[in-house]
Amino acid sequence: MDETQDARPGRVRRRPSARPSAAIDIDAGARYSKLRNPFDPIRVFSDDEVENIHVSALSLLESAGMRVLSAPARARFAAAGADVDESTQTVRLDRGLVETALATAPRTFELQARVPRRNVTIGDRHLAIAPVVGPPNVLDRERGRRPGTLKDFCDFIKLCQHYPSIHILGGCVEPQDVALNVRHLELTHAQLTLSDKPPFIFCRGSGQIADCFALICLAHGIPQEEFVKHAYAYTVVNTNSPRQLDTAMAEGIIDFAQAGQMVIITPFTLAGAMAPVTIAGALTLAHLEALVGITLAQIARPGAPVVYGTFTSNVDMKSGAPAFGTPEFTKACFGAGQLARRLGIPWRSSNATASNCPDAQSAYEAEMSIWGAVLAGCDVMLHGAGWLEGGLSASLEKFVLDIEMLQMMAELFQPLTATPEDIASEAILGVDPGGHFFASPHTMQRYRTAFYTPLVSDRRNYGQWEAAGAMSAAERATAIWKKVLGEFEAPVLDTSAVEALTAYVQRRSHEGGALPPS
Amino acid sequence: MDETQDARPGRVRRRPSARPSAAIDIDAGARYSKLRNPFDPIRVFSDDEVENIHVSALSLLESAGMRVLSAPARARFAAAGADVDESTQTVRLDRGLVETALATAPRTFELQARVPRRNVTIGDRHLAIAPVVGPPNVLDRERGRRPGTLKDFCDFIKLCQHYPSIHILGGCVEPQDVALNVRHLELTHAQLTLSDKPPFIFCRGSGQIADCFALICLAHGIPQEEFVKHAYAYTVVNTNSPRQLDTAMAEGIIDFAQAGQMVIITPFTLAGAMAPVTIAGALTLAHLEALVGITLAQIARPGAPVVYGTFTSNVDMKSGAPAFGTPEFTKACFGAGQLARRLGIPWRSSNATASNCPDAQSAYEAEMSIWGAVLAGCDVMLHGAGWLEGGLSASLEKFVLDIEMLQMMAELFQPLTATPEDIASEAILGVDPGGHFFASPHTMQRYRTAFYTPLVSDRRNYGQWEAAGAMSAAERATAIWKKVLGEFEAPVLDTSAVEALTAYVQRRSHEGGALPPS
Repeated sequence: MDETQDARPGRVRRRPSARPSAAIDIDAGARYSKLRNPFDPIRVFSDDEVENIHVSALSLLESAGMRVLSAPARARFAAAGADVDESTQTVRLDRGLVETALATAPRTFELQARVPRRNVTIGDRHLAIAPVVGPPNVLDRERGRRPGTLKDFCDFIKLCQHYPSIHILGGCVEPQDVALNVRHLELTHAQLTLSDKPPFIFCRGSGQIADCFALICLAHGIPQEEFVKHAYAYTVVNTNSPRQLDTAMAEGIIDFAQAGQMVIITPFTLAGAMAPVTIAGALTLAHLEALVGITLAQIARPGAPVVYGTFTSNVDMKSGAPAFGTPEFTKACFGAGQLARRLGIPWRSSNATASNCPDAQSAYEAEMSIWGAVLAGCDVMLHGAGWLEGGLSASLEKFVLDIEMLQMMAELFQPLTATPEDIASEAILGVDPGGHFFASPHTMQRYRTAFYTPLVSDRRNYGQWEAAGAMSAAERATAIWKKVLGEFEAPVLDTSAVEALTAYVQRRSHEGGALPPS
Repeated sequence: MDETQDARPGRVRRRPSARPSAAIDIDAGARYSKLRNPFDPIRVFSDDEVENIHVSALSLLESAGMRVLSAPARARFAAAGADVDESTQTVRLDRGLVETALATAPRTFELQARVPRRNVTIGDRHLAIAPVVGPPNVLDRERGRRPGTLKDFCDFIKLCQHYPSIHILGGCVEPQDVALNVRHLELTHAQLTLSDKPPFIFCRGSGQIADCFALICLAHGIPQEEFVKHAYAYTVVNTNSPRQLDTAMAEGIIDFAQAGQMVIITPFTLAGAMAPVTIAGALTLAHLEALVGITLAQIARPGAPVVYGTFTSNVDMKSGAPAFGTPEFTKACFGAGQLARRLGIPWRSSNATASNCPDAQSAYEAEMSIWGAVLAGCDVMLHGAGWLEGGLSASLEKFVLDIEMLQMMAELFQPLTATPEDIASEAILGVDPGGHFFASPHTMQRYRTAFYTPLVSDRRNYGQWEAAGAMSAAERATAIWKKVLGEFEAPVLDTSAVEALTAYVQRRSHEGGALPPS
């Protein structure tokens, strides 16, 4: 068999029929549910350059500072010794204050799930993956593109629960059929009843956050005093780049930090738009903004679990439109990972694409994002599955394709061994020149678990593939998410807990819920 | 602007209209035509494991050896001191003979092109990329899948000539409308007249190889004595795994080595089929076979330019079908790169996929292959653009998609700087909180060349994209290859050289050409 000419289907010997495909049932869950990154991070900056970016950000924080729109947040900064100009809402931090905050931020911590085996380690070379967060629209091949609903949100949570390579939940799509004042109740109720993985909460005001925390206590069957001892949930705080932190986000940092819950602080710095056109400049701005958020969290509660988030990409030079999974995006990952390690804080990256459909572009931009994250030492990957269209749609088919890509990366994390049995000299001696290893005892003992079993990838020859409908990977993905949703069974949760959650949602909805700050 | 909610198209400010898109015309050629890999290779094996694989291969070569079907090749092995069993056509090499060969194989060398700026460095961290080699079929969206013709072959060579990220040519598709005895003449004539990049030659017998070498001398205007002083062309030798080297391949090694031309020796070891089911075992077998080819080349001419090729992947466990771009494929890259560095010889990898169409699978398998190659320290990437369907089709759309992926990787190779101007403290100070950098002087000075300009990727918002036909990346790729072919102009070649090439092809065709060994 020859790589260029003779690899025709007819030339490939098929396995003996004694090996039914049903026999191939590997426990992939164990390999995907706890991921530890074996690769040394790539460095694009020298240590001096990392230090220059860090020091430049500190200098900018001292001289220019950040506009913080929340008066309570400014008051906390002032009480901690920051220079606060109330007339311009500007907070200037000296480097001592920042360094004090960094000293108390944990290098690693644990997110508690409802069942201990679902607990998620953040930091220490682990990779925790969350699904897409935030799109207003949902997209699939059968129903097209449409505003998200609560049912769509629930479908995504079911997929998150099903796939072991998703470790924490997310606000996968905005349920626009649920009013804003009660939406947080429904989102949290759905996550807690359809999954036993740690939930995501939006920062939309203290009233909503308090409701969500209360629901988590009910699901875990723990009182508030116990809740604040461990991290059970997380949120994402986006600064309003450049150099502005809005009210809901500032108060979210305080509420989450005080409750000991995980906050990912992510400036969204598009180079050439809300950030300098240079990647180093965009990272400097992002670093400055992240330091403000991290400092606020540590002022609110020293030791609060925070994650240094980066979402630095570039705009399209012709149109100004956001671009993702670009070479600049990947380089920014490498640089941001270095900055996070300089701080000693877990780092969050993303799996993003600007593509409008689950095509080749969506896949190669996702791979550029995933490899960028992994090779930069990513601790938390947000938007790990389902993100499409620059984050404006959550796609069911893209979710499945992303799971395939994530599983392939998870397999790559597994060590490659070279024991004498792996090197297989005896097996090689046992097969004559020009023969094959299909029936070798060495093969027979190992074939069931030797290789990754794909989710969507199709290796049939052209004729077989064409006869089966000539479907692209995106087309095949439809049947996969439908099957998972069709067979979904919610994880066990005490009836009393379910009743308590439902009663809480009903009562608070009746009371009018809670609106985000205007 | 917020990563999860406010990134809606209407919210993104467009660039001032003073920036016409026509102004964006960067000279990408300079960045893509010479690639040097900046990344430290990933190691999956310990030094001991690498040594164990190498020593195991040497032991197997001594005890079991390799079947070499060519009598002249066996004679050369015997003359060099190998143990040759003519009754079984088996050649057993002791490790001293192999080590002597490795000592003369060059670590780096130069492939000469018709114009010096097209010369290609092999080794020394450079990455040389070739297109797909060998498919019998051609595939595009307009004409479907069909047997390759000479016109198709010429089209692929035109694309190779056009894109600077393709550095050396390839046997992109089999022109089945040209008889085998003259096919080599037409393939070489087409490469030499449509491109000034180093050509590819199939190993199909000494007669054909001599013709191809003669044509190259005519194109370069050099005599045979000059030709053998430098490498001007290359071939790929596939062993007939396991442990067999066929006649055409063995004689190709000798002919190319004696003429000082580059030979890539690539065992095609599919774990679980023609090789052990373990990746370490498949690599051990591949290593053993490559050493036989390298040794034969160095026996034929010490110092002959050889490349250690690896094409180790796995079969699908259910069907036995070949799989590519899998996690096992990527791991095998990492291990093979280590083995090549142990030998001190340039290493060849591939960009491969089992997908039958240019969809998401084809892209994520390609990315797994490209990243695997790059992170393993690949010196020559074969099948860099256009490979589809496990190598059974050359796809015009996949060619374009691959070029996009290769260009993105090439951009990633460019250093990321963090000078004070890059860090951009002044620019950050110059933009108010919540403002934007579109009109910043720092942006205005740099925006033209700040970011990669994509070839196929579409960053338009959903509405614009839908209005333009809602095309996938593969669909958009069609217009791109058609435009390149429509506007193609062959590089300058002396009229006398063209006439000499054409006359040679006519004469040799009239004489009956040359058939491959049966």
